[in-house]
Amino acid sequence: MPQRYFVAPAIVSEAGGDRRVLLAGDEARHLVGVMRARVGDEVTLFDGSGSEFAARIVKLGKQAVELEVIAREEISRELALPLTLGVALPKGDRQKWLVEKATELGVTRLVPLVTERGVAQPVEAALDRLRRSVIEASKQCGRNRLLEIGQPQTLAEFAATAPPDALRLIAHPGGADVRTRTTGDELWAAVGPEGGFTDDEVAVAEHAGWQRVSLGRAILRVETAALALAAWWAMR
Amino acid sequence: MPQRYFVAPAIVSEAGGDRRVLLAGDEARHLVGVMRARVGDEVTLFDGSGSEFAARIVKLGKQAVELEVIAREEISRELALPLTLGVALPKGDRQKWLVEKATELGVTRLVPLVTERGVAQPVEAALDRLRRSVIEASKQCGRNRLLEIGQPQTLAEFAATAPPDALRLIAHPGGADVRTRTTGDELWAAVGPEGGFTDDEVAVAEHAGWQRVSLGRAILRVETAALALAAWWAMR
Repeated sequence: MPQRYFVAPAIVSEAGGDRRVLLAGDEARHLVGVMRARVGDEVTLFDGSGSEFAARIVKLGKQAVELEVIAREEISRELALPLTLGVALPKGDRQKWLVEKATELGVTRLVPLVTERGVAQPVEAALDRLRRSVIEASKQCGRNRLLEIGQPQTLAEFAATAPPDALRLIAHPGGADVRTRTTGDELWAAVGPEGGFTDDEVAVAEHAGWQRVSLGRAILRVETAALALAAWWAMR
Repeated sequence: MPQRYFVAPAIVSEAGGDRRVLLAGDEARHLVGVMRARVGDEVTLFDGSGSEFAARIVKLGKQAVELEVIAREEISRELALPLTLGVALPKGDRQKWLVEKATELGVTRLVPLVTERGVAQPVEAALDRLRRSVIEASKQCGRNRLLEIGQPQTLAEFAATAPPDALRLIAHPGGADVRTRTTGDELWAAVGPEGGFTDDEVAVAEHAGWQRVSLGRAILRVETAALALAAWWAMR
């Protein structure tokens, strides 16, 4: 995979050619300072819209790099069937890992869950850090659509948002083995905090039509449970 | 899950009762210094043999805690079908994280692969650190058998060790979709370094009867590929 650079806002090039884009901030500094790019060099850009762009550097500045788009290609590395994951985020590094791995494994949307026993309160600055992790992981793994980090919700809110015909699963002790659940064109899954969802939280989701599932015999950490569900969905 | 403590060597109690064990080092310091344990308190011990033990503290020292075993119970949180994972280990935190998650997901044995493009050379001190990570993760996830960290091997050596009737898979571009591979009572899987296995390495394994598989459309990091394979095997 060649070096990929993320550019925002989206490139609205209709036909390639002549369209100019500006790369700024860390992306520009990396290109100039680390990669020692020069005018005329070609790089790969993506903007989260699903396309990849071949672009040529036309001007190097200290704060920004100007490029012209020379080709656009639609390359999908998305899951065949979408996955929306609600997670009571763990703290610190584990949170960052979870988002990196969720991006690699193709999770479509990740919604931080605000739960009774949860520890990490997802404030806007934290969500921005996670979005930055999504971009970094996407550069590396080749995804051209960004995993979307949603606004925090309670499990009741998250459960009520899911389309009724999606497969809707809560990872919770006492549920059926997840391997018995194999229908649905779309998965919505919820993973609770270290201490688990409360009975009340689970009851509300079950009332909304969600099913409890068990992920095996070991006690998985939050991020492990979330990634195991994502891998199961991606590879089943 | 109550606080669990790892004790070595194995407890050879035949019938519970009267059998004394010593907890030393970090485990003892945690019990005394952090948990403020007292004589008479009951804790859970495991020794990697597959059993859990209820034990009562009979004597507190600065460097060691003496306990008597009062009950022994066989509790398996192992995979139904064993998984041996050969991995060209990534560096630093990613290596530690891989071993923690492999433990949680039930991997039976992990063999560090020495590959042409690999970065981390697994010396004995590093293997010991990984074994320590296995114990920490086992305390938390409830496994009573330890994931075994094997001696480093080349892919050729690893491939030759696998029983011919096991499902034997190499994660490598151009392989068949892993979802088409669903037979076998045991999985042996190999994951290469960031730059991939070389064609020569793959050819030797294929000659030994291994099959290439692809894990989807994105470029997964080493640890992500390994964990996705483990989750796939555990939950399929």
